[in-house]
Amino acid sequence: MQLQQIFVNGERLKNTIESFADFGRTDNNGVTRLSLSEQDVQVRGYFTSCAEELGMAVKVDDMGNIYATLAGSEEGPPVVIGSHLDTVKKGGRFDGVLGVIAGLEVVRTLVDHGIKPRLPITVMNFTNEEGARFEPSMMASGVLAGKFDKAEMLKKKDPEGTTFGEALQASGYAGDAENRIREATAYLELHIEQGPVLERENLKIGLVDCVVGMACYEIEVTGESDHAGTTPMDMRRDALFAATDIITELRRKLAVLDSELVYTMGRMNVLPNIHTVIPNKVIFTVEARHKDMDIVREVEAIINGLPEELLECSVSKTKLWGRDTVWFDPGVCALVEQATQKLGYSSKKMASGAGHDAQFVAGFMPSAMIFVPSVKGKSHCEEELTSYEECEMGVNVVLETVLAVLAGS
Amino acid sequence: MQLQQIFVNGERLKNTIESFADFGRTDNNGVTRLSLSEQDVQVRGYFTSCAEELGMAVKVDDMGNIYATLAGSEEGPPVVIGSHLDTVKKGGRFDGVLGVIAGLEVVRTLVDHGIKPRLPITVMNFTNEEGARFEPSMMASGVLAGKFDKAEMLKKKDPEGTTFGEALQASGYAGDAENRIREATAYLELHIEQGPVLERENLKIGLVDCVVGMACYEIEVTGESDHAGTTPMDMRRDALFAATDIITELRRKLAVLDSELVYTMGRMNVLPNIHTVIPNKVIFTVEARHKDMDIVREVEAIINGLPEELLECSVSKTKLWGRDTVWFDPGVCALVEQATQKLGYSSKKMASGAGHDAQFVAGFMPSAMIFVPSVKGKSHCEEELTSYEECEMGVNVVLETVLAVLAGS
Repeated sequence: MQLQQIFVNGERLKNTIESFADFGRTDNNGVTRLSLSEQDVQVRGYFTSCAEELGMAVKVDDMGNIYATLAGSEEGPPVVIGSHLDTVKKGGRFDGVLGVIAGLEVVRTLVDHGIKPRLPITVMNFTNEEGARFEPSMMASGVLAGKFDKAEMLKKKDPEGTTFGEALQASGYAGDAENRIREATAYLELHIEQGPVLERENLKIGLVDCVVGMACYEIEVTGESDHAGTTPMDMRRDALFAATDIITELRRKLAVLDSELVYTMGRMNVLPNIHTVIPNKVIFTVEARHKDMDIVREVEAIINGLPEELLECSVSKTKLWGRDTVWFDPGVCALVEQATQKLGYSSKKMASGAGHDAQFVAGFMPSAMIFVPSVKGKSHCEEELTSYEECEMGVNVVLETVLAVLAGS
Repeated sequence: MQLQQIFVNGERLKNTIESFADFGRTDNNGVTRLSLSEQDVQVRGYFTSCAEELGMAVKVDDMGNIYATLAGSEEGPPVVIGSHLDTVKKGGRFDGVLGVIAGLEVVRTLVDHGIKPRLPITVMNFTNEEGARFEPSMMASGVLAGKFDKAEMLKKKDPEGTTFGEALQASGYAGDAENRIREATAYLELHIEQGPVLERENLKIGLVDCVVGMACYEIEVTGESDHAGTTPMDMRRDALFAATDIITELRRKLAVLDSELVYTMGRMNVLPNIHTVIPNKVIFTVEARHKDMDIVREVEAIINGLPEELLECSVSKTKLWGRDTVWFDPGVCALVEQATQKLGYSSKKMASGAGHDAQFVAGFMPSAMIFVPSVKGKSHCEEELTSYEECEMGVNVVLETVLAVLAGS
């Protein structure tokens, strides 16, 4: 147990972030590194070589997840630091990769200071977190957690028709199911916030205690297409008018439920979509997220309570999917909070509105997440940005938490 | 001048309608006969042969318009009966073709009764009324009227890249500009209503005194795309929310302007159109039609008075196009009305909400239009239907009006 406070190497961290971004870097300083693409295979090789240089043992499981482990002085469930190296198309330099680099930098810092950890430290890369090439997202962590069926996942195709199984074989990262992680002393995932809250409140660290629950519905409004010039208003069955009335009503009711509720009608298609023809069909999604599942259920009740007929149009609702809020391990969360306080970084407890591998592995590894600010809340785009200083703060929180876990505190 | 009332031959009319529908008939008893397509060239040949059998002289002008003329006992500006033989893709058996067949049936009836008209009678087929293959619609009547530039029209391309000029040459119907019609004693166009009003009111004949004016705008709402799960509601710039507020406001204001005003938001595109992303752009059309141009101008004032910013989104409005109401010739309209009354058919004066060749040629030929009912108001679809009996009534009105014009009444 060290008495002196130690910190990660900010300059090295910055260089590492940029070295990883070289794999798939776009003209606008973003990154395109789709899962199991050539760029992903290359960055996996780079990650592996970095780990081996530190004396870590590298294993790969049957979903292509990589585990780089620094031995501890004792046997026992490792302390795991992980996230994902894949990105969306024209994504950024931070989403995912920062959590993997954090693990490398923690190990490098321990090696710098000649600290041999009590327990093994495993740095993980989860395959296909983004789901940008093969749906669903968080595919490999979902298989580890038993949420997804492996055989089904292997059959998932990318837009070119290549299956996940074929791409995994071709990548050289189809490892052994024996290597799957089954337990850990703690799992820590450092990630960019992907939202604007930390920046707005001028805070450095998000202490993430849950991934919010959600429900997503598709609303289909069916009217009748008629000539825009010859059909009197009182003889129309205008699906767009009915849809806008429904959206207005939904917004009115959802706005007063809870200030932390978020709701979005992100996809909307109007048919036949001709300016001289009255729309006969409008299909749109409504999704809502909140950590309190009672509020999510209230949203569902509001959606299901929509009229079945409006303005002579029929209205149907289909639940596309939903998930319950995943609460992280209170003990690990407390260690993260104490580490942040010890480092003197400003912070707040927050929920993750986006999904992460942590929400799946939390079922069998005591987990917590740490957020660092996203400039203007942007992610999944080339402008995605977190300052190197804030990345460094985040990794220092991971290091401090790992040391606390190792100290058995 | 005959003293005895004469009528068209309903059985022959029915057979003629079905014979014309054989050119491009679809599996569902509709018609696909795009302008200058193989089917259109074939139906033009059939029309020409029918006319020549009646002893009519057939000429073609440089826009491919066909003129079949039965000589009169006197020289002089002809009485013209016309419409178009082209259809939209999967259109019906009545839209357009009925007005051409009406001309043929009128001439056949005169021939049946050994009536030689005082003035020439010309039956016309306008090229490319629908604009379904080559935009704009009413292309050839627009060129005759000087509304469109011929050279520009010849360059218009279909989706395969063929120009109108190339298709016209290939069709064999590129005639002589000398043959363009320049004056007429009267122009009569019988057409299906394409709306539900006659059917609803159980009336047989629409006495069309104008084609309504209209204005069409595109509204573009620009917000910002952010993550649907991580962006608090008070930090969003949701273009869809702003767009639905604008549509609601437009509907509220337009609904109280005038009961005959029709308005439609027919086309609407949401970007990026992903259920987990807040829309950053919504582009939609607003079009409104009314015979009173003061009301159309009020609509335009309402659209232009929309706020330039709403819910942190910017709002821009672009006028895509507009047209003034075209009033038909009061003298010809009066003859149509008298003919209808003489025949004892129920009728009402009405405006045409849709565009027709008549609105262009009305500028140089004293014109009127006659509507017959459309079942459920449907047109431009395979279900398009007008009963043979109602078609027959419509053609009787044309015949009776022609006789009245010829009588010089």
